[in-house]
Amino acid sequence: MIIVLRPEATEKQIEHIVQRVTKLGLKPLVSKGTERTIIGVIGPEDILRATPLEVFPGVEKVMPVLSPYKLVSREFRKENSVIEIGRGIKIGSQEIIIIAGPCAIENYESLYEAAKSVKASGAKALRGGAFKPRTSPYTFQGLGEEGLKYLKDVGDKLGLPTVTEVMDTRDIELVARYADVLQIGARNMQNFVLLKEVGLTKKPVILKRGLSATVKEWLMSAEYILAGGNMNVILCERGIRTFEDSTRNTLDISAIPVVKQASHLPIIVDPSHACGRWGLVGPLARAAVAGGCDGLIIEVHPRPEEALSDGAQSLTPESFAELIPPIKQIANVLGRKV
Amino acid sequence: MIIVLRPEATEKQIEHIVQRVTKLGLKPLVSKGTERTIIGVIGPEDILRATPLEVFPGVEKVMPVLSPYKLVSREFRKENSVIEIGRGIKIGSQEIIIIAGPCAIENYESLYEAAKSVKASGAKALRGGAFKPRTSPYTFQGLGEEGLKYLKDVGDKLGLPTVTEVMDTRDIELVARYADVLQIGARNMQNFVLLKEVGLTKKPVILKRGLSATVKEWLMSAEYILAGGNMNVILCERGIRTFEDSTRNTLDISAIPVVKQASHLPIIVDPSHACGRWGLVGPLARAAVAGGCDGLIIEVHPRPEEALSDGAQSLTPESFAELIPPIKQIANVLGRKV
Amino acid sequence: MIIVLRPEATEKQIEHIVQRVTKLGLKPLVSKGTERTIIGVIGPEDILRATPLEVFPGVEKVMPVLSPYKLVSREFRKENSVIEIGRGIKIGSQEIIIIAGPCAIENYESLYEAAKSVKASGAKALRGGAFKPRTSPYTFQGLGEEGLKYLKDVGDKLGLPTVTEVMDTRDIELVARYADVLQIGARNMQNFVLLKEVGLTKKPVILKRGLSATVKEWLMSAEYILAGGNMNVILCERGIRTFEDSTRNTLDISAIPVVKQASHLPIIVDPSHACGRWGLVGPLARAAVAGGCDGLIIEVHPRPEEALSDGAQSLTPESFAELIPPIKQIANVLGRKV
Amino acid sequence: MIIVLRPEATEKQIEHIVQRVTKLGLKPLVSKGTERTIIGVIGPEDILRATPLEVFPGVEKVMPVLSPYKLVSREFRKENSVIEIGRGIKIGSQEIIIIAGPCAIENYESLYEAAKSVKASGAKALRGGAFKPRTSPYTFQGLGEEGLKYLKDVGDKLGLPTVTEVMDTRDIELVARYADVLQIGARNMQNFVLLKEVGLTKKPVILKRGLSATVKEWLMSAEYILAGGNMNVILCERGIRTFEDSTRNTLDISAIPVVKQASHLPIIVDPSHACGRWGLVGPLARAAVAGGCDGLIIEVHPRPEEALSDGAQSLTPESFAELIPPIKQIANVLGRKV
Repeated sequence: MIIVLRPEATEKQIEHIVQRVTKLGLKPLVSKGTERTIIGVIGPEDILRATPLEVFPGVEKVMPVLSPYKLVSREFRKENSVIEIGRGIKIGSQEIIIIAGPCAIENYESLYEAAKSVKASGAKALRGGAFKPRTSPYTFQGLGEEGLKYLKDVGDKLGLPTVTEVMDTRDIELVARYADVLQIGARNMQNFVLLKEVGLTKKPVILKRGLSATVKEWLMSAEYILAGGNMNVILCERGIRTFEDSTRNTLDISAIPVVKQASHLPIIVDPSHACGRWGLVGPLARAAVAGGCDGLIIEVHPRPEEALSDGAQSLTPESFAELIPPIKQIANVLGRKV
Repeated sequence: MIIVLRPEATEKQIEHIVQRVTKLGLKPLVSKGTERTIIGVIGPEDILRATPLEVFPGVEKVMPVLSPYKLVSREFRKENSVIEIGRGIKIGSQEIIIIAGPCAIENYESLYEAAKSVKASGAKALRGGAFKPRTSPYTFQGLGEEGLKYLKDVGDKLGLPTVTEVMDTRDIELVARYADVLQIGARNMQNFVLLKEVGLTKKPVILKRGLSATVKEWLMSAEYILAGGNMNVILCERGIRTFEDSTRNTLDISAIPVVKQASHLPIIVDPSHACGRWGLVGPLARAAVAGGCDGLIIEVHPRPEEALSDGAQSLTPESFAELIPPIKQIANVLGRKV
Repeated sequence: MIIVLRPEATEKQIEHIVQRVTKLGLKPLVSKGTERTIIGVIGPEDILRATPLEVFPGVEKVMPVLSPYKLVSREFRKENSVIEIGRGIKIGSQEIIIIAGPCAIENYESLYEAAKSVKASGAKALRGGAFKPRTSPYTFQGLGEEGLKYLKDVGDKLGLPTVTEVMDTRDIELVARYADVLQIGARNMQNFVLLKEVGLTKKPVILKRGLSATVKEWLMSAEYILAGGNMNVILCERGIRTFEDSTRNTLDISAIPVVKQASHLPIIVDPSHACGRWGLVGPLARAAVAGGCDGLIIEVHPRPEEALSDGAQSLTPESFAELIPPIKQIANVLGRKV
Repeated sequence: MIIVLRPEATEKQIEHIVQRVTKLGLKPLVSKGTERTIIGVIGPEDILRATPLEVFPGVEKVMPVLSPYKLVSREFRKENSVIEIGRGIKIGSQEIIIIAGPCAIENYESLYEAAKSVKASGAKALRGGAFKPRTSPYTFQGLGEEGLKYLKDVGDKLGLPTVTEVMDTRDIELVARYADVLQIGARNMQNFVLLKEVGLTKKPVILKRGLSATVKEWLMSAEYILAGGNMNVILCERGIRTFEDSTRNTLDISAIPVVKQASHLPIIVDPSHACGRWGLVGPLARAAVAGGCDGLIIEVHPRPEEALSDGAQSLTPESFAELIPPIKQIANVLGRKV
């Protein structure tokens, strides 16, 4: 931690800060420059983070030196984490995993139809929402437990691990009973109670990035889950909110290498939510694989015109099938496989 | 709803859309311009919103004409809503209400000290967090029920209605037992399950705007609460996330008149979270009152240097006391009072 | 400047950096913490800024301690700068100056009509664009020199100093001949050649904030002008670009106190461009004055329905007249006057 | 153009709008819905765009149906534009063109060294700045004409077309004399005078996207150049400004397919400025090619530690050489070549 003092800071103010820092068991190093005095503090930054040094008289600003996360960091663990999501499928290894399926589970038949087709094209896991976070209370909110049953049944029949969102602490046990992977949606990325609770399970968790979350905050949310004892976290970049309005969100493609440098956790990309337009999913999926992601999660609906949710960004099974071959080849270029 | 077709849209595609719209019980009006054909649809937009018209062949874009919210809109209710928050204090009337207190409840004494001082200066309600949404799992997370007890006790002793955050559906009943007003934090603005559940209570709710929520989305989140039957919603602007980094967030001052035009709900402003620096709270509070807000919620701590949370943005009781007189006078200029 | 090293940085890498810093005539202080080694550098940061320390092997990040601007800073000059804009009108003193007029100069009559009415209501200077930066090449681009002549003539007749935009280095001499104040538009805030050239004149300059400029960058652009020898710079906050789409831009009200702390330069606010809707200009203007601005610049058109540019955000003379009395009173609350 | 009326709009107000629209030579279609009356207007939207319909009494909002650009649009020209940039090198065809070189031209030797190495690795054109837009007036501003001479000489020696930025209308003739391609920097994307002037030349122009420009605005800036008669415009995505601070900007990878749908102009990507960190240039360059770009522009410096500008994001010749083979292979996957 570096404490930068105002030019007019007095000796007494400096002394006050030095005493406080020392009292916290840390070692302050005062360095008087020509224009500013700065105080470097050696020792665990966490102790200082909890102290609002900015309000101490004479302080201009406080600059942390270390990252606030620990368990998710590359420093904590050098090698990539590989997370098993069920039925032997692993995310974070040399294989790039494609997860696909409808946005919402609408009925058994269309889920089965979607699942069968995406499996045939190369998807290794099935997605489908039973609890849907919708911006309007007047739109389809998901089938709930009935949907979870369909999901489990279809997953079992086709041998696909399943991914579904959990939105409420009260539903974790229920969702975990039916699904292989718990998804935390973008709008719940900082629902800290939910994060803590899924941290107490052993289930793999896909943690979507919040609409306006920095990579650092996203990693801090993952830290909540790991701190609870659950190391099975997969990060999912799904676009951030910017001023650009030709796409639903702006896919932050640089988040892939940034996360890879900062953390050992695997990162997948959701091109469907990132753009909100099915016609852009292909280029974004290819870019994500070329950028180094560990997997993709893509919305596919047998008949997007009839989808109850996110139809505009859903691929048909045919478009999805066409998407896969170039992705396989790009993966190969990078020494990976799909 | 206006459906704009691509220049190359065929008669068959137009027919397909017209049939679908008609089947939904709506009336399509096809209008062929020199460069584009557009289809205007008359009837309830909600029905169409659930249909992903963007994926219909030949469609270029779909433009909704109406706002997606109903109960929160000025059209639904012309006059301003006035929400009673307890002990006769009302938000949304001619009086501008100041809510103040510490970010987190740390212990009984400091809460009482803060409450007593803010009441003396003119605050009409007490804020204090018992459940704290913190970005790091390693920082103070709040006292929980113990904190709620202190809050109730201090509120009772000083005759102040109390405001505190609820973060988990499982805690609503508990929090509602102790506090007068439930606060939904910015990070939970789109925690739709939580919104639905507080919608089932009769408690006044302060709904903070999400960090990257548009005014429209914010109103849609309020709609969730009203749709559940709870009309007692107070909106709280607390800054949005932008690229500017000299302040913690960017106070969207225009949100006040925008909300006032679009909705009958009262709107208050939280200058403390908006800027994150106590030295800016005064100018922002004055601006918010001049801009037409119905109340302020301000962080005050007896000794910010020792605060366990948000010390940097907390006013001392003395700074808070100095803040009030100009605010009163500005309120008077606008024909209101504090 | 603080250089934070990677945990795996070697002694040799540290030595390499120390040597380079020393060679630049600066004094490095190496401090080995438990988790990181950091190197504090004492001496003028400018020398180091020009050196890309981030690419030196072993470096994790580089954190500047000082602000990059000098002449515009409060440290350089403690007291507020007061800029005379002609005919004895001063910006930055106790008086809050209102500048008003049409977006574009369309013809002599309507300019005179606008000017006469705004003067009657209390405006102290006249604005009007002769060179218009328009996003489309197919819209009205301004009257050029003819417009400047009208502006000068109307200003002379009514005794009002005049403000107009200059967009091209080749036009500076021309514009300076006719107008009292040169305006640099938001889209030219980082047109560094233009900044340098107006820095060589002695004319007062209104420097609008760029659509996505941080306060720091804005001050750096002002620094360009001051560095050229022209100290007469007035900053103008006019809204920044965010994701919110109910207003044209988002007025960053906190920029007022932030600038006041960081700089001695006066700051005025343009509520018209900030919101883009005339119905919001009133609340924003009041908020800006309450927030501590030194002036307002407001678009007024005799018949907004017929305006060739920005009609949607222009006030009528009547609405403008109604705006002034509460602004006067709010100014009085703060010990200022309009 | 669709005009949406307020629910309380009167017959007289509707009549007023209808008259005005008709007077402009357009055909209004009034359609009365259950909740709103809307007026569709048939005919050229440009005429209406210049009319501020939002201020007409009774109007709630105005929604344009058509894009504001014409010459740059796919509708104007179906097939991709292919721009020759000199020495037979074409951008926009099946070949993906890599432009590389130092940020700033510092001296003849290092420019030659950089150019020779990037050519050997596969670059087809040379970049180098002689006029540098720097945020601080105290940093290296470029060598000016001397730099242009070096650039031309090195380009001639190695047979590489050259790209350099022009910042001032007064320099266009000078820069055009020495360089093959004129670059308009991000900060000048809405310097409309500069756009108009380069529109009068026949030189190929690389138009960088502004830091906070929407794709639509970017295309409108290109429209300025085409409207002047110069059809040789190459768009360059270089990252937009968002809240994310782990990278200098956020590369908007979706801009590639969005532009490809909307326009016939080629689009290249600058991964160096997008991320600001050399270690991320590789993944971003690969992603850009996989996403469908027509070229890359990459900063390479023989000794980044000594670079006078942007050293942190410059590749060494060795890193640049390593970058090329996977890019070639990804291009092949998409049926293109490097």
